[in-house]
Amino acid sequence: MKLMNARGTRDFPPEEKIIRQKLIDTLRSTFELYGFSPLETPIIERTEVLSAKYAGGSEILKETFNFKDQGDRELMMRYDLTVPLARFIGMNPTVKMPFKRYAIGRVFRDGPIKTGRYREFWQCDVDIVGSKSMLAEAQLIQIAQKFFAAAGIDVKIEVNNRKILDGMMEAAGVPEDKRMEAVLEIDKLKKTSLNDVQELLRKTGIGADSILIITKVITTPGINQEKIAELKELISNETGIAGINEVEELLSYVDNKNVVFNPALARGLSYYTGPVFEVFLADEKVFGSSLAAGGRWDNMISDFLESKKEFPATGISFGIEPITTVLGLLKKEDAVVKTVTKLYVLPIQTVKECVGICEQLRSAGVNTDMDLSGRGVSKNLDYANKMGIPYVLFVGEDELKQGKFKLKDMKSGEEELVSVEEVIKIFRA
Amino acid sequence: MKLMNARGTRDFPPEEKIIRQKLIDTLRSTFELYGFSPLETPIIERTEVLSAKYAGGSEILKETFNFKDQGDRELMMRYDLTVPLARFIGMNPTVKMPFKRYAIGRVFRDGPIKTGRYREFWQCDVDIVGSKSMLAEAQLIQIAQKFFAAAGIDVKIEVNNRKILDGMMEAAGVPEDKRMEAVLEIDKLKKTSLNDVQELLRKTGIGADSILIITKVITTPGINQEKIAELKELISNETGIAGINEVEELLSYVDNKNVVFNPALARGLSYYTGPVFEVFLADEKVFGSSLAAGGRWDNMISDFLESKKEFPATGISFGIEPITTVLGLLKKEDAVVKTVTKLYVLPIQTVKECVGICEQLRSAGVNTDMDLSGRGVSKNLDYANKMGIPYVLFVGEDELKQGKFKLKDMKSGEEELVSVEEVIKIFRA
Repeated sequence: MKLMNARGTRDFPPEEKIIRQKLIDTLRSTFELYGFSPLETPIIERTEVLSAKYAGGSEILKETFNFKDQGDRELMMRYDLTVPLARFIGMNPTVKMPFKRYAIGRVFRDGPIKTGRYREFWQCDVDIVGSKSMLAEAQLIQIAQKFFAAAGIDVKIEVNNRKILDGMMEAAGVPEDKRMEAVLEIDKLKKTSLNDVQELLRKTGIGADSILIITKVITTPGINQEKIAELKELISNETGIAGINEVEELLSYVDNKNVVFNPALARGLSYYTGPVFEVFLADEKVFGSSLAAGGRWDNMISDFLESKKEFPATGISFGIEPITTVLGLLKKEDAVVKTVTKLYVLPIQTVKECVGICEQLRSAGVNTDMDLSGRGVSKNLDYANKMGIPYVLFVGEDELKQGKFKLKDMKSGEEELVSVEEVIKIFRA
Repeated sequence: MKLMNARGTRDFPPEEKIIRQKLIDTLRSTFELYGFSPLETPIIERTEVLSAKYAGGSEILKETFNFKDQGDRELMMRYDLTVPLARFIGMNPTVKMPFKRYAIGRVFRDGPIKTGRYREFWQCDVDIVGSKSMLAEAQLIQIAQKFFAAAGIDVKIEVNNRKILDGMMEAAGVPEDKRMEAVLEIDKLKKTSLNDVQELLRKTGIGADSILIITKVITTPGINQEKIAELKELISNETGIAGINEVEELLSYVDNKNVVFNPALARGLSYYTGPVFEVFLADEKVFGSSLAAGGRWDNMISDFLESKKEFPATGISFGIEPITTVLGLLKKEDAVVKTVTKLYVLPIQTVKECVGICEQLRSAGVNTDMDLSGRGVSKNLDYANKMGIPYVLFVGEDELKQGKFKLKDMKSGEEELVSVEEVIKIFRA
């Protein structure tokens, strides 16, 4: 038997999982600050549900893990957290609206393995179902601002509105059947030049006059308010104006410090209906992929349901993989921490007493461990050092009599004589 | 299309997930207090690994979810968190010992659906690999004590040692090939009478003299120390004495207040090699199934590896399902909380200002939400009430001018006029 992971899956040893967990904790507490509550849906869903016409779409369905249970029922591992939310709403139509939920968990795609792409990965989604107001989007933008500030990552949040893109297409006279294709070409602007995008639009069969108008819109210069004023000149149809007004309202609710209205932002997915947003590292040269992204998807749940009842919805999804990558890129050289332990108690012929001291420290909230193997002092110090435990407490018989123990700071090497109560005070400070 | 869950799976709406998440948070922080660090292994594993001879055993392998990836590789969803730990250790043999890890996550079994049995459920495991000391088991018992105390659940922790059972069988002259079967019959003592167990042993072909000795051992009366003294009289072979000494040492490290040495505790699984333990509600009449259980499994990893290198291990697993059931049984009648929101801001023609007030409150750590739908006062109050949000803050134009707002306690109905700063103080207190 070969001991190996399934292709496209990974283990996260403590030194990595501690960092990922801290990120997830920060996301979760930020989501909760904004009044989003947790919803757990299963990893296994019925194939019929996840492959429904208005669910994830045919591209995703090529990459699903499928199997049957003992009763020969067709099952699928979830590929996102959105379709299960739509199912939940459909099965619980009396749930109070707005329904604000977050979901943090693994999703699965049997796709090709490339750098940074895995078959099992985490999604952290926050969605508001049942509100059409731009106040909903404002909360999503604010969550992104608060989370990335807490994580120490300097970001730029780009916003746009699908209605502006639609209005632009109308103003430019692009036929309806070519609009989605054109949107997808515009979406490539981040990864290629304006010339290339214009060339791609030409190839799509869009005329020079139309491309001129599109170019004007997607390259509108200035700060957010200047762009809004300029667009109001360029686009006068109802759809476009509605989109511009929504952007204006949304921007009026949030701190604009790191929010950039980008009329070229398209977001590939076809189901978006209004505001779209994408979060990038402020210095895109360091890392160019998005760290979080989302938008309004007013029609999906309704399309999905037999009742066709309206359920407007908007949400944002945070990617743990790109965010940890960025944290790694930004991080100053630091000792690797392989444990949550903060204090290591080293018994010298005092095992039983050390058990009591450890319990005292834990009851005071200090993550404490002790030697479990009867090792000598130097081997224990080597262990604490390699694990990245910041403090070691030496407990010998003399120290027990005096009630004072040597506390060693493993980083500075400094030592001081302290009582257990003093150790607790040091850790509380 | 029928909107329904896959058989044996469930959704946890916020009112349930909040409770489950709190339990998991408490488990996690207790694990970390004892110096256990998180390890994440994938949900998808290679079939070859999970179906290895010394892994979960043939009974479990009848209940696995199996499938293939696009490359036709045979895969399986994990059915526990222990075999993946063994694989991880095997693939990372240089990891520092003792390796103390916790893992909290879902496991999957395609078994028959009965009350309280699901196909997708959570396990919360904590294991120590690389220590033979009873200090390791002491930490597991202490974790159980601390966690259940924090959860407000009064428990009884039963401990025994497989070596005592082996020694008892030897002392009773039970042939080796009948011992495992006899252990499984003794394990039924909780669910049936002593007479029935004796009858079952008789049917196994065990003689009357042997049954007499077994009965004496498994019904030894008295407190822990009395039982130990009594057993030392009854069992004099090397294995049995080793087991009794281990129990004695383990009990010397932990507070015995709710720890009961039960020489009849067997724990069905064949892979246990030393101490075994099981946690029950103190009042077993209210709930009789175990809430947590574990034991020492010194041979599994070694058997599992080609190198046959020794990796002693011991661990305990907490069951979220029985623990939430017990919490539900113990709970006094209380309002259902459907949200993490603590304060609901109700704008009366003051939407934009309320966005700012909400941000101020969130920055101070208060989980705050506001109306997103332009609803009137009574509809908003109804919403806050139905969601179980404890406080509502009314923000009208006059209040804005005065800088004082009506804060309503939704439970008592009491109202007071307060500034935003005072609201923050109230929530911090």
